[in-house]
Amino acid sequence: MDSGKKRHIVIIGGGFGGIKTARMLAKADVDITLIDKTNHHLFQPLLYQVATAALSPGDIAVPIRAVFGKQKNVQVILGEVVDVLEQQKQIRLKDDRLITFDSLVVACGAQYNYFGNTAWQKYAPGLKTISNALTIRERILLSLEKAEQIDDPEERQKYLNFVVIGGGPTGVEMAGAIAEIAKRNMMRDFTNFSKDEAHVYLVEAGPRILNGYDETLSDKAVIMLEDLGVEVLHGKPVTQIEKDKVFLGEQVLESPNIVWAAGVVANPVVETLDVEKDRAGRAIVSPDMSLPRHRDVFVIGDAAYAEDDNGSPLPALAPVAMQQGKFLAKLIADPQKYDAETRPAFHYMDKGSMATIGRARAVADIRGLKLSGFFAWLMWSVIHILFLIGFRNRLHVFVEWMWHYFTYKRGVRLITDRPEEPIELHQQGRAREKAI
Amino acid sequence: MDSGKKRHIVIIGGGFGGIKTARMLAKADVDITLIDKTNHHLFQPLLYQVATAALSPGDIAVPIRAVFGKQKNVQVILGEVVDVLEQQKQIRLKDDRLITFDSLVVACGAQYNYFGNTAWQKYAPGLKTISNALTIRERILLSLEKAEQIDDPEERQKYLNFVVIGGGPTGVEMAGAIAEIAKRNMMRDFTNFSKDEAHVYLVEAGPRILNGYDETLSDKAVIMLEDLGVEVLHGKPVTQIEKDKVFLGEQVLESPNIVWAAGVVANPVVETLDVEKDRAGRAIVSPDMSLPRHRDVFVIGDAAYAEDDNGSPLPALAPVAMQQGKFLAKLIADPQKYDAETRPAFHYMDKGSMATIGRARAVADIRGLKLSGFFAWLMWSVIHILFLIGFRNRLHVFVEWMWHYFTYKRGVRLITDRPEEPIELHQQGRAREKAI
Repeated sequence: MDSGKKRHIVIIGGGFGGIKTARMLAKADVDITLIDKTNHHLFQPLLYQVATAALSPGDIAVPIRAVFGKQKNVQVILGEVVDVLEQQKQIRLKDDRLITFDSLVVACGAQYNYFGNTAWQKYAPGLKTISNALTIRERILLSLEKAEQIDDPEERQKYLNFVVIGGGPTGVEMAGAIAEIAKRNMMRDFTNFSKDEAHVYLVEAGPRILNGYDETLSDKAVIMLEDLGVEVLHGKPVTQIEKDKVFLGEQVLESPNIVWAAGVVANPVVETLDVEKDRAGRAIVSPDMSLPRHRDVFVIGDAAYAEDDNGSPLPALAPVAMQQGKFLAKLIADPQKYDAETRPAFHYMDKGSMATIGRARAVADIRGLKLSGFFAWLMWSVIHILFLIGFRNRLHVFVEWMWHYFTYKRGVRLITDRPEEPIELHQQGRAREKAI
Repeated sequence: MDSGKKRHIVIIGGGFGGIKTARMLAKADVDITLIDKTNHHLFQPLLYQVATAALSPGDIAVPIRAVFGKQKNVQVILGEVVDVLEQQKQIRLKDDRLITFDSLVVACGAQYNYFGNTAWQKYAPGLKTISNALTIRERILLSLEKAEQIDDPEERQKYLNFVVIGGGPTGVEMAGAIAEIAKRNMMRDFTNFSKDEAHVYLVEAGPRILNGYDETLSDKAVIMLEDLGVEVLHGKPVTQIEKDKVFLGEQVLESPNIVWAAGVVANPVVETLDVEKDRAGRAIVSPDMSLPRHRDVFVIGDAAYAEDDNGSPLPALAPVAMQQGKFLAKLIADPQKYDAETRPAFHYMDKGSMATIGRARAVADIRGLKLSGFFAWLMWSVIHILFLIGFRNRLHVFVEWMWHYFTYKRGVRLITDRPEEPIELHQQGRAREKAI
């Protein structure tokens, strides 16, 4: 800046936090490098709709490169960061390249936490990437096809069982959507079994689902889910997962359709940071989101542990990451005004939280105002469309939802297995979606 | 029929021919079983648009089960036929189940022919399945990402080369679409290289492209392609393909983006039939599309060799398969009227052929009326939208094309590699997309 050379801001991750930070720095006198393992920004709140054949991957993803097509101070790199060298102010990419930064924003998000049981991942995929969603979609559709071809009801039962583990918003939304498919949407197309044979289980280790919400909303969610035909199992910790089997102590649920939505852990990049971590592997940051020992390295979003004004941990939600990104952009744009000693603390403005439960129903908690049912769902729909990046995606999702609402049909019921031979183009390419 | 039990019609393949046959038998007093390796009918003429990131797979595919949701005399089975036992009037599925038929319609289509060089397939995928299209899309997008990160122009050149082998309609459409991506659409998002560095080669072994069309249209197509920046290489047979390399005798083209569109061979099911085959492995059928020695077994579409009234072979086009399907449905619906001895011959009504070349340009030959340019492209667009099955798909493709036309942007630029671990659910599932 003073020497004519602009400060270099490196951002790891093209999720809600990373994109927001870079966008808010559009007019700042800096050079930005945004690095992501994939080439797209993913609107994760709607990923469960890809997994349940309602939306196409292209509807909820947008190339990061296209987001910044007109913002000339951003360079986008497809690559995987393997190490952060705070002392040298450098990061190392998987292909050993080093990139030097003046400020670093780690916004790499989280991945599903199998609590040390990495073998479970294979049988019970999480729902973080498009690849995850397509795997789940394919399993569900194939199970129904298989059930159609087995005449013995006992033998085909497992193909009509669906198990979702974890009663947070993702688990609730997933279970509701699967129930719609398996007990309603597609039944007209199958002749060999009835909808009563389909069982959708939502398994929660704790005493109630939607733990972060008000208890009345949790109860309403259970009623709505049961109404859709979901069997909600409370206080049932998963003790073991094997191929096509979930063990809940003595009880065993048999199904090739097991979805893991039970807790997350920060991305491995966070491990390499010189900072204390919480139990979920998140960096415990200073009030200004920086590392206590390295004040030019910031961590935001699901990768960071921060607290609100009451001392409760901030939730792992898109609005948190986006507000943090906006906050950081302000700090970074004006280092004179905001030096390490005088920086303000980040404050989260909680605008509410919501979860949708099947078609035309949802629960919402908007600053203490508790809503449920059709109106909550309408609000959920409008807000989610508004937050999608890009007019094209908004239009597509709107068209698809209208179609789905009036016809009850799922549009994207494709089984598109990929060839056995993985594509080898270069290192970064290979690493893209492997993390989970 | 006479005994109260309905005749059983088995149809292999849910492509244009198979779907048409089953649909036209909606009111016939028969039971129909339609078997396909995949769960979807694919609108193959637009598959190249999935490969070039203009459309989502869901836009051009529709679940076969959904097509027949309301047609009660059709049962849809996801499965792979491995043998036809004409004497017993049975087919054998991969899981060894036998299905008995009264009439059999083999409409299993074709796959790309590597003329014995099966190793080439890995380096130069064809364009027959959604999986193929996604592989090609991913390679193209990754190449551009790679090129963006290499500073040495010589080193990055191969990532900016694109080779399409085969100058038929698919090859021409593919080359035109790639040229639009690589030399125009996406360039604004990349900063490290210029569009002049991108080279798109269309390699044709014979003396001219679009060999089935009038020579004036072939010439026009070359002009339009060159205008888009495609380098058309005539009279250049491919002598060898290795990883990232195409050998044309002495000349070598280096590229990770090699697309094979050079000739097809009938699906392996046809091999098991008791009938003479032509060089491309297609069944040489009687004038009524039946096997000469088994008059209740019919072969249609790309799997059959039949001739028009002038003795020229019928082209491998959707309208041929659909007309044959309609013809067969008539024969099958009324076996009293059309017994094996008195059946009429099939006549193809050639309504014309067309190929599109990039944005807003096409060539068309409508019963001798030769068109090229914008008007031909408009006609191409309207016809392709009308022939898509299902209102939802028509709407989506229309929206996407309008978007693309006015913004010049490609909507579906996703790299979504699948997990290493292939999904194992059951045999049929695994076999689905392996054929090519």
